Amino acid sequence: MSGPPTDTVSVELGDRSYPIVIGSGLLEEVGPRLVARLGAGAIAIVTNPTVGVLYLERVETSLRHVGYQVTVVEIPDGEEYKNLASLALIYDRLLEARLERASPVLALGGGVIGDLAGFAAATLLRGVPFVQLPTTLLAQVDSSVGGKTGINHAAGKNLIGAFYQPRLVLIDISTLKTLPRRELLAGLVEVIKYGVILDAELFVTIETQLDAVLSLDEDLLRSIVQRCCALKAVVVQRDEREADYRSILNYGHTLGHALEALTGYQRYLHGEAVAIGMAFAAKLSFVRGYCNEETMQRINQLLKRAGLPVEVPREFSAQQLARVIEGDKKVSSGKVKFICVESVGHARFEHLPAPEVAALAVA
Amino acid sequence: MSGPPTDTVSVELGDRSYPIVIGSGLLEEVGPRLVARLGAGAIAIVTNPTVGVLYLERVETSLRHVGYQVTVVEIPDGEEYKNLASLALIYDRLLEARLERASPVLALGGGVIGDLAGFAAATLLRGVPFVQLPTTLLAQVDSSVGGKTGINHAAGKNLIGAFYQPRLVLIDISTLKTLPRRELLAGLVEVIKYGVILDAELFVTIETQLDAVLSLDEDLLRSIVQRCCALKAVVVQRDEREADYRSILNYGHTLGHALEALTGYQRYLHGEAVAIGMAFAAKLSFVRGYCNEETMQRINQLLKRAGLPVEVPREFSAQQLARVIEGDKKVSSGKVKFICVESVGHARFEHLPAPEVAALAVA
Repeated sequence: MSGPPTDTVSVELGDRSYPIVIGSGLLEEVGPRLVARLGAGAIAIVTNPTVGVLYLERVETSLRHVGYQVTVVEIPDGEEYKNLASLALIYDRLLEARLERASPVLALGGGVIGDLAGFAAATLLRGVPFVQLPTTLLAQVDSSVGGKTGINHAAGKNLIGAFYQPRLVLIDISTLKTLPRRELLAGLVEVIKYGVILDAELFVTIETQLDAVLSLDEDLLRSIVQRCCALKAVVVQRDEREADYRSILNYGHTLGHALEALTGYQRYLHGEAVAIGMAFAAKLSFVRGYCNEETMQRINQLLKRAGLPVEVPREFSAQQLARVIEGDKKVSSGKVKFICVESVGHARFEHLPAPEVAALAVA
Repeated sequence: MSGPPTDTVSVELGDRSYPIVIGSGLLEEVGPRLVARLGAGAIAIVTNPTVGVLYLERVETSLRHVGYQVTVVEIPDGEEYKNLASLALIYDRLLEARLERASPVLALGGGVIGDLAGFAAATLLRGVPFVQLPTTLLAQVDSSVGGKTGINHAAGKNLIGAFYQPRLVLIDISTLKTLPRRELLAGLVEVIKYGVILDAELFVTIETQLDAVLSLDEDLLRSIVQRCCALKAVVVQRDEREADYRSILNYGHTLGHALEALTGYQRYLHGEAVAIGMAFAAKLSFVRGYCNEETMQRINQLLKRAGLPVEVPREFSAQQLARVIEGDKKVSSGKVKFICVESVGHARFEHLPAPEVAALAVA
């Protein structure tokens, strides 16, 4: 392909292996890049109106140009639409369009669209090819890679879903230019998370070049996104279905998920809730003697410098928090698998009673 | 374990391998057999009132006896309840009961319950352990083995689902004593199908011992069920996700599914529609010169002797049939993958235009 430079990360999972291609302007190359890999025929795009108005036309044009018959399904924008009703709508539309087992489903959007479209692809005709076109930083560094798909339930986030790997991930970092700053920051939280748990050098990169990241320096962004995808690929290759090790990626997510649930998914973006959860996990790690004070402070400081929230809101009781944490997928025999930090770049697991975690969170 | 003799068939699928245990009275041994394999804790049973009134108490007692906390979800009896609404109900109940990732879901019933509960287990918390306790002949020889799970959609049967292997299949053939004769015959269709496509000896067994089968001779039934499970295991081991070879099991199912859809899943039991489809597939095979007349007649005769329908009903036009056949999962590039017979025990694939298949069906 011509055009600006691209990086490729390979996710090696035997017959479920796939490439992640990272570059600027890739949405205009979707058609040729797909047809070479998956063949022509019927194809579907799942997106939302916010992303659709910006990028749908160029993706559709590129697909039609190489001969695809395109069906578009638009789901309203927002986490509250990642539910069974939206899934039913996607099934109806894709079956109406007579998609076959070889017909790809494309997710054009952020994490909500990717999770929802991925779960539809995983379960339509017991599985059709799935392609991720992530347009938010969060989706580009995290949710589009690794095969977690799913929907929310009144009882909690992502409680229904499947492990289903995409056949291709195309990351067009130029889409970050249209991303609201608040969402950019929320995505940056997951970048910082990789630094905390796995990669001290990446953490230092963000510490020292925060301004360049936030001003969307393309070379820097491409290298950061590439680094995050490579880190996630290593984790997923080691433990695709989260038997154990993969849950390291949930650093900051136990409390993060609980805060999202308690605020009805309205107050915080996912990344913002995780930022609070990350600062809290560092505090818990320090209090229990797993890390030193400097480590806790560095994590806290970097999140704050980026303008992210780090304080647990005061209005919830320990009991409320404990109850939500107990409903988490990572609970077994009543204990929550909590990811702690030892030093920047190094994490560990601890199995803790939910009430103990909740008590420290409100303290 | 004490008690009457059991047979075991192993399905070898790497880390997704599992045993199928076949015997009489196994439902009373569910608890000890499960706890040894999956550990104690929360557990759920999905069943329907028809089966529940007969067998739920003994299964529950056996489970509670070894320390399981049991949640029961009852879905109304019938193919029309194998849908998204029932699935949503199961999700609600299992999440309310706080099932964890290691908590097993048991399907106690026939194919509808197995498919529905299996899909719920495949997608709850991205997959919890699944156990099949099939109580119909159809489920015992076919649907409980091999990992196909799913629900129906207005556009057709099983259009939404997942490949998800059970951790254990316990087949209690004594349940066949309470099975209505019509359902027993419908299950026998799939037994005859294995004979037609894979096992001439099994076909001869049914030809020569039909009366003993229908009078539920336990030793004969156990050996037939064991043989069918072993045949299916070989097929599934060769092609778990139906990339190609596994679709041999769909002999008789293309027209069968179409007739079920056109009659709103009301007139025929699945096996009855497949019986018509099998007789038709033999006719098509003979007309196209793939098998001789004797093969066609033997298949037709055995189905008729068992009291099964073999005639395509007259009220549907070729166009109506073709349209439904085209919506089948086995269609690609407009052609349907049709399973033909060469001789009893030997099948082959042919890719045929749906209108051609439909034309012969109404001729």
